[in-house]
Parts: sequence; C-alpha cells; structure tokens
Amino acid sequence: MSGPPPPVALVRAAVRRALDGLPAGALALVACSGGPDSLALAGAAAFVAPRLGLRAGGVTVDHGLQEGSAERADAVAAVLGGLGLDPVERIAVAVGTVGGPEGAARTARYAALEKAADAHGASAVLLGHTRDDQAETVLLRLARGSGARSLAAMSPRSGRYLRPLLELDRRTVHAAAGLMGLDPWSDPHNADPAYARSRVRHDALPALERVLGPGVAEALARTATLLRDDADALDEWADRAERQAGRGPTALDAAELAALPRAVRTRLLRRVALAAGCPAGALTAGHVFALDRLVTDWRGQAHVDLPGARRGRRTDGRIVVSADS
Amino acid sequence: MSGPPPPVALVRAAVRRALDGLPAGALALVACSGGPDSLALAGAAAFVAPRLGLRAGGVTVDHGLQEGSAERADAVAAVLGGLGLDPVERIAVAVGTVGGPEGAARTARYAALEKAADAHGASAVLLGHTRDDQAETVLLRLARGSGARSLAAMSPRSGRYLRPLLELDRRTVHAAAGLMGLDPWSDPHNADPAYARSRVRHDALPALERVLGPGVAEALARTATLLRDDADALDEWADRAERQAGRGPTALDAAELAALPRAVRTRLLRRVALAAGCPAGALTAGHVFALDRLVTDWRGQAHVDLPGARRGRRTDGRIVVSADS
Repeated sequence: MSGPPPPVALVRAAVRRALDGLPAGALALVACSGGPDSLALAGAAAFVAPRLGLRAGGVTVDHGLQEGSAERADAVAAVLGGLGLDPVERIAVAVGTVGGPEGAARTARYAALEKAADAHGASAVLLGHTRDDQAETVLLRLARGSGARSLAAMSPRSGRYLRPLLELDRRTVHAAAGLMGLDPWSDPHNADPAYARSRVRHDALPALERVLGPGVAEALARTATLLRDDADALDEWADRAERQAGRGPTALDAAELAALPRAVRTRLLRRVALAAGCPAGALTAGHVFALDRLVTDWRGQAHVDLPGARRGRRTDGRIVVSADS
Repeated sequence: MSGPPPPVALVRAAVRRALDGLPAGALALVACSGGPDSLALAGAAAFVAPRLGLRAGGVTVDHGLQEGSAERADAVAAVLGGLGLDPVERIAVAVGTVGGPEGAARTARYAALEKAADAHGASAVLLGHTRDDQAETVLLRLARGSGARSLAAMSPRSGRYLRPLLELDRRTVHAAAGLMGLDPWSDPHNADPAYARSRVRHDALPALERVLGPGVAEALARTATLLRDDADALDEWADRAERQAGRGPTALDAAELAALPRAVRTRLLRRVALAAGCPAGALTAGHVFALDRLVTDWRGQAHVDLPGARRGRRTDGRIVVSADS
C-alpha cells in the first residue's frame, strides 16, 4: 500500500506534530484565506484531527477590501465545510487605518480569530504561514535595523496560535494543496507592488537568491529560530535582573544596571521607558542607548528626551523615566 | 576660521575617538590597501595621531595576486610616507588556498599585519572597514543561516585591531579621501562578480534598497551592533553555566543543562563539541540541536554523529563528545 504523495505527507506530519498533545476532543480552528497555504493546512487538519481524537473547524475572514470578497468568503467556507471541518465560520470585519493597510487588516483579522476561538472554545488556532513567509518577515524587519526579538519573526507557537507549516517551504505546501484537489484563490495583494511584503517576495528574495545562491529563505528562517532562543534567554535574564534593579515600574537602580551586560541593561531600560508611556513604535535603539549613557557615561547630564513627551533622568542613583515637564 | 570639510572632519573625529585612550607615544599602524577607505583612514591618522601625542605608521600588504601588485604596494607605501606616517612597511605575502580565494587572502593579510604590529610594537592596528562593509558582511552571513555571534559581523575593537570607520558610510569616507587630495586605487576584485562580496555590494544591497527603501545598509549595521551585545551577554552566561555544568572539557552534566534556556544550552554543547575536535566550519546548528535532544528528549538514543568523526552520547547523566569508535 503506497502512502500519500510526499508533499501531502509532509504537510500532514507537520500538522500532526503541532496538534499532538492537545487534550482529547479539543477543537483546532484553521484560519483560512482560501489561498493555497491555508487551504492545504485545512485539508491536512481535516485528515489529521479525527485520527488524534481531536476536532477541526475553520474560520475565514472577509476583510471587505476587495470587490466580491463576501462571495469569496462564502465559497471558502463552503470548501472548508466540504473538507469536513466543523464548525465553519465566516466573519466579516471592518478594517481600520491604524498601522497602514497591511497592519490594519492584520489587526482586524486577529481580533476576529480571537473572538471565533473564544466563541467555539477552541484550544488551538492554526495559521498557514510557511518558511517563505518567515523569511520575508525577517527581511522586512532587517530593513528596520531590528534586534533579536524582532528578527525572531513569527513564533511556531504563541499561546493558542500555532503555525504548523513554518518549517515547510511554500512550494511543498502549494503542491500539497494541488494534490489534495483544492482550488486556491490568488490574493491580488500578494502580487501588488504597493505592498512591501509583495515586493520582498517577488523582487528582494529572488535577487538575494541570485546573488547568494539558493537556500536564502531557509537560511533566514533558521536565523529567526536561533535568534528566538537568544531573545527568550535574554528576556529571562532581564526578568531576573528587573527584580534586582527595579525601583518601581519606571525606575531602575543605576549601580545594579551598571553590573549587567549591555544587552540586558538595554532591555531593562526599554521596559522602563515603555512602562512610563513611551510609544513602542517610536522608541528606537538610539533612545535606549541615550538612556544607557546615563548609566555608563554619567557626567551629570540634564535629561534624555524620549518619544511620547517623556524624559529619562538620573536622580539619586536611579534612572527614572517620567512625563516631560 | 573655517574647519575642514564635513567628510574630512567626520573621518578625523572617528579616528580620534578610536585612538583616544592609547598611552602617550604609542604607535598605531594603519593597514592600507591603497583603496579610498584605508587611504582616508591613513590621512586622518596622520593628522590626528600627533595631536594626541601618538605615532601613526602604515603597512601595505602585497598579496601577489594581480599583475603589477608589487609596484602598486611600493606606490601605496610612498603615499603613506608622504602623509608623514612612520614607520611604513610594505609586506609581500604568499596566499594559500584554504578557505577560498577571499578567505586565503584574508588569512595571509592578517598574519602579515600581526607580524608587522609585533615587530614595531604597535599598540593598535587600524582597519578601514566602513558601515557598508559591515552591512555586506551581515548579508553574506545571513545567507548561511547564522546566529547572533556571526551576524554581529565585524567588531569595532578586537584586541589591538580597531575599525574607526565602522559607523561611517562609504560615500562619506570616499569623499574624505578625495578632499584630502588622495588618489585611490580601485581593486578590480571589488567589481568582479566572481567574488560573493562584490555581488552583494553591486547587486544584492542595491536590490534591497530598491525594494525596502534607502537605509538598508545602516539598518543591517545597526542589527549587527545589537546582536553583538546579545552574543556577548549570552557568552557571559555560558561561561558561568560552564563552570556549573562542566564535567571536564568535553562533558556536561545533563541535569544542569536541562535547567538552562536553550540559547545557553546550545552554546555550551557547541563549545564541548569544538573542544572534542569537531571542526568549527562543519559543525552546524543542526548538529547542536541533535545533541540538545539528548538533554531535552532523552529516550535512550544510541549517539549523535558529529563532523570530524566525533560522536555525542549521554552516559551516566552526562553529555559527552568523543572520537567516533
């Protein structure tokens, strides 16, 4: 007896590993756009879940951003139902403007998924991101001069959100969708050069592959995995150090800070600035390094200006961030 | 009275910051290829060093790889002497083959620099790498799926080797060389697509800038700086953990390891594998993760095959790496 073709077997095995360990009878909801990745994920979940004594359902989100999106969401929901997913939900959302078009759609989508998962008591929400999506995310974040946490990109597991396909390449997952007889929808946004991710996918990564050889996407994804471990370890150290050096939520003991390596010190200083109300998006490494100079290069400086009308000061041997006044 | 033009002032200030703190009368040797970056560095060092009570000398290395390289080395040495550097040395090296053409040239060059620095009792050797060189290095290493230490790329300060220009962009440094009246030599290797670095410089980075916007080189260099701090902190943690968990140079206590975060554990496992003789270039993250499964997923596995005919085993609650037998 021959098994399923290799791409299907790979996708199913990845889903099995992700779902393994969920309690018997638990519900895993597949978030499905109708694109090939999430369709293959849905097909694999429909196959795997019952064999593990679990239930698989599906959610598709209508972002209302394109002509005919409601009809498309209906069609995707019908496909999910046809695969045997149950329950299947189709949710229309209103996309705002905060965070740019991609960011706003993402915010609306995750709010809808969260609501659906709560409503159905789902133990897991499965997302269809592949290794290529991961590589694109790493490149987009590199362009901002990011640190380890940001370059760690998407987590394979974050609360109840699971990304079973994160170690598979897109080509394999697309092949699996075809072999499962699924007919994917092509989101025109994915080819629209107005979107940074689309430009990274169609221009930047192919250019890097030409120059550096094949395997760049895999390499970027591997870097993300290594840096996730680093960021986790340094956050653990920072947690411990905060208990030693913390003097309330927005103050740190300068002598305690000085004894820490810079990577840990700057993480603590960043936390304190955020706790004091600096907006995360506006707080740069440059701001944090300026705060750090109050620790390592103290010459009686007046203060450090921070975003959100906040200031960092050194007072009585403490680094304090507070409202600008 | 007007000061020097901004590019010259920036290069001089960078050299001044790097040399500040050297003992009075100390010698700083500029490593100069005759290209614009290291010529600007030489010009700035000739100006700055005497004003700080220091001496500046120069070394140029003839790699013997191109027609006329000996004459060119003589010409560079003459320019360095003309700038007032003293001593000036011109060293011919024999480039081997180990590590590929770029790697072998680099090995021969650093051996020559080391020897010259020792011979003249230099306190510092100045290298002309710019922020753009740093960004290229980061991209080259990303293509290998590297971790934080590798992505930290070139250090601004490593022993007596200093890279004063590492925060300046190449355009500024080239402008400074021109403004100093220096006539740089263009290394044809820098434009030769046979060299990965040349492809990164002329194809990959411009493609990324087109897709992601300007500032990619600066962003990559900033990432390198952040990851250097992370790698330093995690090495510090690994040092401490090794004193706890070490059972000789090639063995670690499994229970002690299990209590560490994965980023620290894998660093220790890597150290032990290297100490047992695994060749650094062949030891991948995949090998180290396989060793880690002896700690975190122990089911009585036989052993893990490692490069250099080495094996990792779990015996009596210890992870041991030894010769394959």
